[in-house]
Amino acid sequence: MIGIFDSGVGGMTVARAVETLLPDLQIIYYGDLARTPYGNKSPETIIQYSINNTEFLLSHGAQAVIVACNSAASVASETLRKKFNVPIFEVIIPAVNRAVKTTHSGKIGVIGTRATIRSDIYARKIKLESPDLKVFSQACPLLVPLVEEGWLTARETKMILRKYLAPLKQEQIDTLVLGCTHYPLLKDLIQHRAGKNRVRLIDSSIEVSLSLQAYLNKNPDFCEALGHDTVNKYFVSDITKAAINTAERIFGRHIDLIKV
Amino acid sequence: MIGIFDSGVGGMTVARAVETLLPDLQIIYYGDLARTPYGNKSPETIIQYSINNTEFLLSHGAQAVIVACNSAASVASETLRKKFNVPIFEVIIPAVNRAVKTTHSGKIGVIGTRATIRSDIYARKIKLESPDLKVFSQACPLLVPLVEEGWLTARETKMILRKYLAPLKQEQIDTLVLGCTHYPLLKDLIQHRAGKNRVRLIDSSIEVSLSLQAYLNKNPDFCEALGHDTVNKYFVSDITKAAINTAERIFGRHIDLIKV
Repeated sequence: MIGIFDSGVGGMTVARAVETLLPDLQIIYYGDLARTPYGNKSPETIIQYSINNTEFLLSHGAQAVIVACNSAASVASETLRKKFNVPIFEVIIPAVNRAVKTTHSGKIGVIGTRATIRSDIYARKIKLESPDLKVFSQACPLLVPLVEEGWLTARETKMILRKYLAPLKQEQIDTLVLGCTHYPLLKDLIQHRAGKNRVRLIDSSIEVSLSLQAYLNKNPDFCEALGHDTVNKYFVSDITKAAINTAERIFGRHIDLIKV
Repeated sequence: MIGIFDSGVGGMTVARAVETLLPDLQIIYYGDLARTPYGNKSPETIIQYSINNTEFLLSHGAQAVIVACNSAASVASETLRKKFNVPIFEVIIPAVNRAVKTTHSGKIGVIGTRATIRSDIYARKIKLESPDLKVFSQACPLLVPLVEEGWLTARETKMILRKYLAPLKQEQIDTLVLGCTHYPLLKDLIQHRAGKNRVRLIDSSIEVSLSLQAYLNKNPDFCEALGHDTVNKYFVSDITKAAINTAERIFGRHIDLIKV
């Protein structure tokens, strides 16, 4: 059983990608809607919440955990790896690896929440891989509320995106990392505003699923030991109409959210 | 000592109003930044958090509590009054009373978070006072993030406000209740978009302070028993740069936030 947690329902873009790529896996999801969002909280608080969420998933049978929240992945992954004895996947490193392989111009853009961008983790990890690359980061704190409101094609969303992306465009990036699991819902708009034929978008929800797949291929024993119940479970710490709607928007079908 | 709680720093507009009107009172403030915002959470969760916050304030010596968060006031005030044996003030009823006295046309607008508007509390309380009045409500979920980003005069904020206020304008309201403690920071913009000479704004942070003042005048014994230490204390459950900035924007001076 693969555990996935996020501050809310945005991480369901990861669950959907895992479901698409590895349909035999059983997923157990935990969305911390009672304390969402994480992107505007301090590192200490985000680490504490990430430990709580991982404990919840393990106590419900998870044999590996995906940190499907960039804010949590950026500040809490190392702590989780030290503290828990299961494979911990997260959305940042797979996206970093893809970005490094993708860029030709050597100029990579990263967008994310305030917590993710402030941690500077993407820039640090990219430069660790390839010190000559240039990384341009931009915090986009209003995108999560806009997505959660369902304003996916609103004029205001387009304007705010243009404002956020203008400095990256000016730097002539050719690769843009979507450093927040909510952003795939704005993929078309972001692609359009970033430059249609010039910029390749890196979707961390897809990249982390591919890295999980690669791990399973390399570790057949682990793969064998995984539970293969057929029902995925979606737990949340709070339940609201807006969350139900966003979940449906992500999966394109109704999702039963279980309040715990 | 007067306790004030809010989901974050928005309720500091209430603290500032109390400080201005009743400078001798000692204020103890609690901002639940580790779980902010409340406006997108369920009533059950908001009630639980409000109980936690009230217990914190009482354990630190508060002799009365102001619920300075409309989302909490709208769903949790009755529970708090039943559970705790101190005067509980909140931001809704004073604003309702003022709105009922202010309107001439009998058409009142209310703006607030999703939780506040969904609770329908303003409309219910206004109609209880005066059944013939018409109330037009509008959830404005993006305003809190915009204020917290400091986009107080941004073009995008103006456009989003125009979108939110258009249906109220069409109904020709003459009174508009600012049903969220963040909104006083957007007062000028809201006044402009709602109609400069036609619409009177009701600021709940001022109204609740006036109602506290009236209570103290009527209850000299209670007033006498209040602690009059001179230092106000601002506790928060998490601390971030954005919160520090918003606090400064509200008070117009530096505020020491104490993380608990």
